[in-house]
Amino acid sequence: MKMPRHRRHSNTIRDVAALAGVSISTVSKALSGGGRMRPETRDKVREAANTLGFRPNSLAQSLHQNRSRTIGILSTDRFGRFSFPIVEAMEEVLANEGIGIFMCNATDDPEREKQHISQLLAKRVDGIVVTARRADRRPGIELIGRDIPVIYVFSQSENNNALSLLPDDEGGAVLATEHLLSLGRRRIAHITGPEGFEAVRLRHRGYVRALQQARMPQPPELYLSGAWSETWGREAAQKLLDLAEPPDAIFCGNDQIARGAIDCMREAGVSVPHDIAVVGYDNWEVMAEACRPRLTSIDMNLMELGREAGRALLQLMSGGKLSGVRRLPCSLVIRHSSGPVKH
Amino acid sequence: MKMPRHRRHSNTIRDVAALAGVSISTVSKALSGGGRMRPETRDKVREAANTLGFRPNSLAQSLHQNRSRTIGILSTDRFGRFSFPIVEAMEEVLANEGIGIFMCNATDDPEREKQHISQLLAKRVDGIVVTARRADRRPGIELIGRDIPVIYVFSQSENNNALSLLPDDEGGAVLATEHLLSLGRRRIAHITGPEGFEAVRLRHRGYVRALQQARMPQPPELYLSGAWSETWGREAAQKLLDLAEPPDAIFCGNDQIARGAIDCMREAGVSVPHDIAVVGYDNWEVMAEACRPRLTSIDMNLMELGREAGRALLQLMSGGKLSGVRRLPCSLVIRHSSGPVKH
Repeated sequence: MKMPRHRRHSNTIRDVAALAGVSISTVSKALSGGGRMRPETRDKVREAANTLGFRPNSLAQSLHQNRSRTIGILSTDRFGRFSFPIVEAMEEVLANEGIGIFMCNATDDPEREKQHISQLLAKRVDGIVVTARRADRRPGIELIGRDIPVIYVFSQSENNNALSLLPDDEGGAVLATEHLLSLGRRRIAHITGPEGFEAVRLRHRGYVRALQQARMPQPPELYLSGAWSETWGREAAQKLLDLAEPPDAIFCGNDQIARGAIDCMREAGVSVPHDIAVVGYDNWEVMAEACRPRLTSIDMNLMELGREAGRALLQLMSGGKLSGVRRLPCSLVIRHSSGPVKH
Repeated sequence: MKMPRHRRHSNTIRDVAALAGVSISTVSKALSGGGRMRPETRDKVREAANTLGFRPNSLAQSLHQNRSRTIGILSTDRFGRFSFPIVEAMEEVLANEGIGIFMCNATDDPEREKQHISQLLAKRVDGIVVTARRADRRPGIELIGRDIPVIYVFSQSENNNALSLLPDDEGGAVLATEHLLSLGRRRIAHITGPEGFEAVRLRHRGYVRALQQARMPQPPELYLSGAWSETWGREAAQKLLDLAEPPDAIFCGNDQIARGAIDCMREAGVSVPHDIAVVGYDNWEVMAEACRPRLTSIDMNLMELGREAGRALLQLMSGGKLSGVRRLPCSLVIRHSSGPVKH
């Protein structure tokens, strides 16, 4: 069964039927996997379809089943550093189920967000995933009378009936602080970002909790909140070095702050990790690896968050019920900026 | 015309017709913008559709027109730093035309790439955009008998009939080198990445061309090729400082190399830009702003590349012909690491 390939037009189900010598409805059943027929017939049809480069029109199939086998992702992160690993991992889970992803980028513009949702609904997506630049609460999206699953990832709906998947910020901070305690550190500072971020408040809470459990002091001068930048990291580290009694460890709210702090200490002749150990947050590879010494950091496991989101969406799409806020564990990635105290 | 909203099921065209008091075919014509009717009738139908939260099923429309008004993006960059701005800008251009984007991530796995293409074709996408981690040549994708537009962005097809859109690497390097020459610099070094990258070879060519045009010497010891990292930047800068006659400027192949070079010089007590001016490449905001001093860099205008890709795809989708390699201009972003020679 050999034929010249047709390159200039799409072959139709009719062409496949003709080539395989069966009826159109047999082709349809053979390719959808449904219906009863002899295995040889099914093979013959598949071979004909391959020869002609024919694949069943999934638009037509979707319409028939009233399922599009596509979902929409609405991002307000301009698909930045945090969204990408999430989207990538989710894409992998869903692609394995033959589900395609429409991506829309709303960059914090509510009007544009409405338009995007409207377009996604017109495309009859089977679900929507909302992801953002920060994990803070946001209003739920308006589905205008439709009823499809919506989940929030690295983003949190004000509507508690929705499922929100987030990294466990408090738990991550506990991990970082306990790691420093386990190294024998006793005066642990925390330099972090703006308190307007829920992540800043939760990480601070985790830091305080770990210190309390270890019955360690928490002098207020060791807590410094500022910007998410290297400049702030350098500035804050200098303040700590100027204290009558400087800290012996610093837990930083992100890797940029940690890098700034480490640069400041190196230039002041303070040894990291011997004099002061440092732990960052985000495990942003390019930043952590460029630190001197290389930076120990907390990883939010964003790929796992994305895979979990994909699995949750599949569950919801097949009629399961999931709601509320779920926080996934972070992990500690140990490099050279944290080590035991110098003897 | 007021009605309770139906929240639990999708309203149908039949509901809209009943509410507006017209026939189903009138609703269809009114909402598609086609057909003749009095403006009042069209308004009445639209109002009814709004009240019921009804929007025409674009799956059904697509099937009818044999157009899905969607395109696929196939990335091998894991949607990383170079892909995001391109995809974001393209998405904006296409969303304005009501065209949705399917994203697929093939991460350099040819089998997975084939699967993705097959799925995109099954979804009857109207076009495919291929984007990558680096702008090097790659085999064209196989459409298995279909004939839809394919373009390569930040990626180059070995097939010259395809359209490839790339940043003008040679031109960017000329910009950087001429900027340093215009500041009175006379011994300009070039530290760059691995020569396996086409971008490395083209940027080197631009650097050489600008020096030749200015009749400047090009001592071979001023050209250093290594890795795309800060570590290599520091190492290479140290080699340059150790020369009998060090350079008075360095053009770096990316911003990470530039940052490493600047750190090395600061720690060696060499003033940037007074003793040695530095220009980077990529204009990676977070890196350029964190440099001390802030880094002058070449911007590849990836957003513009994305917009151009969106426009080119629209042209191809409406029957236009475009092919070959097009290189878009880069621009120079001046910050504090480049300035006139010290007097």
